[in-house]
Amino acid sequence: MAPVLLETLNAADRKTFAAVLGEVMELAPWVADDAYTARPFASVTALYQAMTDAVRNAPAERIGALIKGHPDLAGKAAREGKLNADSTAEQTGAGLDQLSEQEFAAFHRLNDAYRGKFGMPFIVCVRRHGKESILRQFERRLQNDPTAERKTALDEIFRIAALRLDQRVAGPGPLKVHGHLSTHVLDTHGGHPAQGIAIELCEIGTAGTCTLLRTVTNAEGRTDKLLIGGAPIPIATYELRFSVGDYFAGRNVPTADPPFLSVVPIRFAVAEPEGRYHVPLSITPWAYSTYRGS
Amino acid sequence: MAPVLLETLNAADRKTFAAVLGEVMELAPWVADDAYTARPFASVTALYQAMTDAVRNAPAERIGALIKGHPDLAGKAAREGKLNADSTAEQTGAGLDQLSEQEFAAFHRLNDAYRGKFGMPFIVCVRRHGKESILRQFERRLQNDPTAERKTALDEIFRIAALRLDQRVAGPGPLKVHGHLSTHVLDTHGGHPAQGIAIELCEIGTAGTCTLLRTVTNAEGRTDKLLIGGAPIPIATYELRFSVGDYFAGRNVPTADPPFLSVVPIRFAVAEPEGRYHVPLSITPWAYSTYRGS
Amino acid sequence: MAPVLLETLNAADRKTFAAVLGEVMELAPWVADDAYTARPFASVTALYQAMTDAVRNAPAERIGALIKGHPDLAGKAAREGKLNADSTAEQTGAGLDQLSEQEFAAFHRLNDAYRGKFGMPFIVCVRRHGKESILRQFERRLQNDPTAERKTALDEIFRIAALRLDQRVAGPGPLKVHGHLSTHVLDTHGGHPAQGIAIELCEIGTAGTCTLLRTVTNAEGRTDKLLIGGAPIPIATYELRFSVGDYFAGRNVPTADPPFLSVVPIRFAVAEPEGRYHVPLSITPWAYSTYRGS
Amino acid sequence: MAPVLLETLNAADRKTFAAVLGEVMELAPWVADDAYTARPFASVTALYQAMTDAVRNAPAERIGALIKGHPDLAGKAAREGKLNADSTAEQTGAGLDQLSEQEFAAFHRLNDAYRGKFGMPFIVCVRRHGKESILRQFERRLQNDPTAERKTALDEIFRIAALRLDQRVAGPGPLKVHGHLSTHVLDTHGGHPAQGIAIELCEIGTAGTCTLLRTVTNAEGRTDKLLIGGAPIPIATYELRFSVGDYFAGRNVPTADPPFLSVVPIRFAVAEPEGRYHVPLSITPWAYSTYRGS
Repeated sequence: MAPVLLETLNAADRKTFAAVLGEVMELAPWVADDAYTARPFASVTALYQAMTDAVRNAPAERIGALIKGHPDLAGKAAREGKLNADSTAEQTGAGLDQLSEQEFAAFHRLNDAYRGKFGMPFIVCVRRHGKESILRQFERRLQNDPTAERKTALDEIFRIAALRLDQRVAGPGPLKVHGHLSTHVLDTHGGHPAQGIAIELCEIGTAGTCTLLRTVTNAEGRTDKLLIGGAPIPIATYELRFSVGDYFAGRNVPTADPPFLSVVPIRFAVAEPEGRYHVPLSITPWAYSTYRGS
Repeated sequence: MAPVLLETLNAADRKTFAAVLGEVMELAPWVADDAYTARPFASVTALYQAMTDAVRNAPAERIGALIKGHPDLAGKAAREGKLNADSTAEQTGAGLDQLSEQEFAAFHRLNDAYRGKFGMPFIVCVRRHGKESILRQFERRLQNDPTAERKTALDEIFRIAALRLDQRVAGPGPLKVHGHLSTHVLDTHGGHPAQGIAIELCEIGTAGTCTLLRTVTNAEGRTDKLLIGGAPIPIATYELRFSVGDYFAGRNVPTADPPFLSVVPIRFAVAEPEGRYHVPLSITPWAYSTYRGS
Repeated sequence: MAPVLLETLNAADRKTFAAVLGEVMELAPWVADDAYTARPFASVTALYQAMTDAVRNAPAERIGALIKGHPDLAGKAAREGKLNADSTAEQTGAGLDQLSEQEFAAFHRLNDAYRGKFGMPFIVCVRRHGKESILRQFERRLQNDPTAERKTALDEIFRIAALRLDQRVAGPGPLKVHGHLSTHVLDTHGGHPAQGIAIELCEIGTAGTCTLLRTVTNAEGRTDKLLIGGAPIPIATYELRFSVGDYFAGRNVPTADPPFLSVVPIRFAVAEPEGRYHVPLSITPWAYSTYRGS
Repeated sequence: MAPVLLETLNAADRKTFAAVLGEVMELAPWVADDAYTARPFASVTALYQAMTDAVRNAPAERIGALIKGHPDLAGKAAREGKLNADSTAEQTGAGLDQLSEQEFAAFHRLNDAYRGKFGMPFIVCVRRHGKESILRQFERRLQNDPTAERKTALDEIFRIAALRLDQRVAGPGPLKVHGHLSTHVLDTHGGHPAQGIAIELCEIGTAGTCTLLRTVTNAEGRTDKLLIGGAPIPIATYELRFSVGDYFAGRNVPTADPPFLSVVPIRFAVAEPEGRYHVPLSITPWAYSTYRGS
């Protein structure tokens, strides 16, 4: 579904406004309705601000209801296909629909423990996390005291809302919810960018295939598109695999048989989903280096 | 079995000499018997020379019998436990006793094709190869013409003999049949060797666990023992995995959460089993480099 | 003097056209006059093409006169201030007005030898060369045969013309006569661009001060402006000097006293004046690396 | 003068003992005489311990006389050739006999200020410092309070004594007074040690020629001898200059004209005169890296 222009929304009637934004906050159409009165918005960020302010200024029981309206992660509603479209897409994107028995049991146990301690569902913006990171968050947040955890839950609701809003509305002052993952391969044997290097990007620690994408470097040693862009980069461990053996063989550079380096794996973790991660490779048939750039 | 000293062997009678060296050439005790007359030997290399000369100077039919006396790789004799101790150890060391159905079928097919073309068993010094490299040799040598291939078979018999001799006899002028694989970790964040980095060495492409050894760096950033030494390094692809995340966490170096680098894998292939491979790592929490040193 | 727009020139009368372009070819206003008839020009490159075609299609004696009309490098006319404004600026820019006695004697000797062999002045586009490179060109071209050398002289006249044209006319399809020299400093100790590193760029091998510029890295670890841009990069040896000691001291990174690295010099030569040279530095207090990027 | 064996010294009479060791402490033969009674010594370190204990246990006025017996650095006695052989060699080695007028004035001023504040000569073990480092020490120690400075002076006397003793006596348990400076050049273009690279070692900041030595790498990419060994490495800034352009040209590796890298300078400072400094270079025609190893 293509995003609506902010200017269109600014001119829309109450019903249209609600149709576009009603599900930005889970099961809480009143938030969009509240924000409606603050039109027009100079920027998407201002609209987001109005919606989060509406929540912050709401009575405590209404906020409590908003929190409690969220579904469990990998919970009964999810298994029975009873989530709304956003939640379904979010939980599926994080792989929560493909858990092993063991993982499913872990989520079940943690959901119960969390509800037992805090009396609310565990809420996390799953598009910002890989599966392992979600479990790590779960374990950590179980240690919080109720006040801090309630604040954390609200922060996560706002992060979920920001991403839903970013998908629904286009306009000036966009929300800073996208990360960048890029690479660059330099052939320091020949002294120029390495063109034609096949690259595979994997997410480590996922069941089944870990391959997120395959691409190839262009004349500048870069990829035509960002490896990851236009979305948060889930907190997870990744591996970039560069087929440098084929590259040097294709250029008739003398090496060993088999070549010392064939596939170079660079394994790294992303900690800031909205950050810029540039992971370049300088390569000869016998040596390489990499670093986190930006 | 501890090796016999060369000087002991030089003074031994014919029967003792044969008992030590009779199986250096597969099913061909006459080679050792022939070499007996050339005693004393100034070096292990001279003894090896005498044994290979005995073969080279033998009548063609005797050489043919020597070649044909070798068992198939992963063949019927192997499966039925009918190999001698050396061949058993060699084939087992290369993992040929643990083939998948598919690999077993590949060996079977190649053995048949090879015998069909050349009228002799496929002989290769398996201690110098990983499983994939053996299959690659097999495919390549099937393309040879019979004269070249007969010479190659003899070269491999001599390589097998060199390793068997190296295990049986100690003395001056040892055979150059050992490779060296070593590493060194330098902490270029702190400006000193990295002590206490856990390292795992894997052989890539083997079924089941690939772990060959686990070790840890000492105060000089090296390992107390060579990673591989005292034997050929099988031609194969390896991966060294360095636990740098734990290392920097243990030193309270500020990084990200999760750290950008946790386990650094360095994947490389060995092409010269008797070569010196030094694969060092220079590391910060955000960057690293490696190269083939010697 | 601000460049004239190509569209203005396309609409100009013969006299104005000549006033702008008459000195693009040394002492040969007929070239511009010839090109005038080919107006209008779709691009600066097309104008350049028309002017060089006018020369190529001219009678041999006219080309000979064009060649012979060029002044000697560091010659009598130059010393007596009798060069036109372009030649003066070009020779001064290359430092030919500040030669040592020894260098002056070398130029004098080479000028004489060249005129003796070829019967024409030595012509080179000095804005593309440092002083040493000019002398190296001189020595090499003295080895040419007269036909090849006449062609080389004409090529250099066209290079001079291209640069003069580039300064005089702005418009679509500009000439590719500019090089790029840039740098980027990455702090691989902290895992981010290095901001605030003082940088000095020197040309090695010049008498007196070698400093071409001083600058400092910005928040992206780059310099606000290209180190060299908007002109050819003279073929010469350069040194970039990065004050990394002050940088780490300013961030309270523990090092040695005195620090292991204070000023890091990176010395490199430029061979293609119109090329892109990116010379980055990855640095910790104890290690660094650099490479030619693009 | 070849060193005397410790065992010879252990068996020597009082007069011979004094002849060898009398000048280890400047103008204080009583120290050696005192130590004589503690013979025999199991190690050179034990002998050193006995001599420094003799000083520590001496009456305060005797220690004061020992301190005051030291000559000024670059002082009147030095200029008039009135120093003993040890002091002359030490001050000459540090270049204090070749000061510029300005440097000489600086020493004069500092000597006066120091004597004025502390009533004793400024004592520093000059073999552990380059000229700039001596001046820096001078400036810093002028800030000390008299008690701390008196202790520092004694420490320096003991350092001077250790080096004098190390030159005079050979035997078990030698003093740890030597530093190591080494290098290693790895050709990561070809994947092997770089043999035949010409190297120049310079001390930066000295007047006149800065060249300490010229050497060339061997088949292992190392130098046959340590760059500096068997002595402290003076605290100073050094530059290693590697002629990599000639190396790659000699191997017919295609590069640019002129080559991007000809002479690679690595500039670094030594802070621990008794430390191990390994400064290796990994090189291709287009990239290099270095680090402080050990």
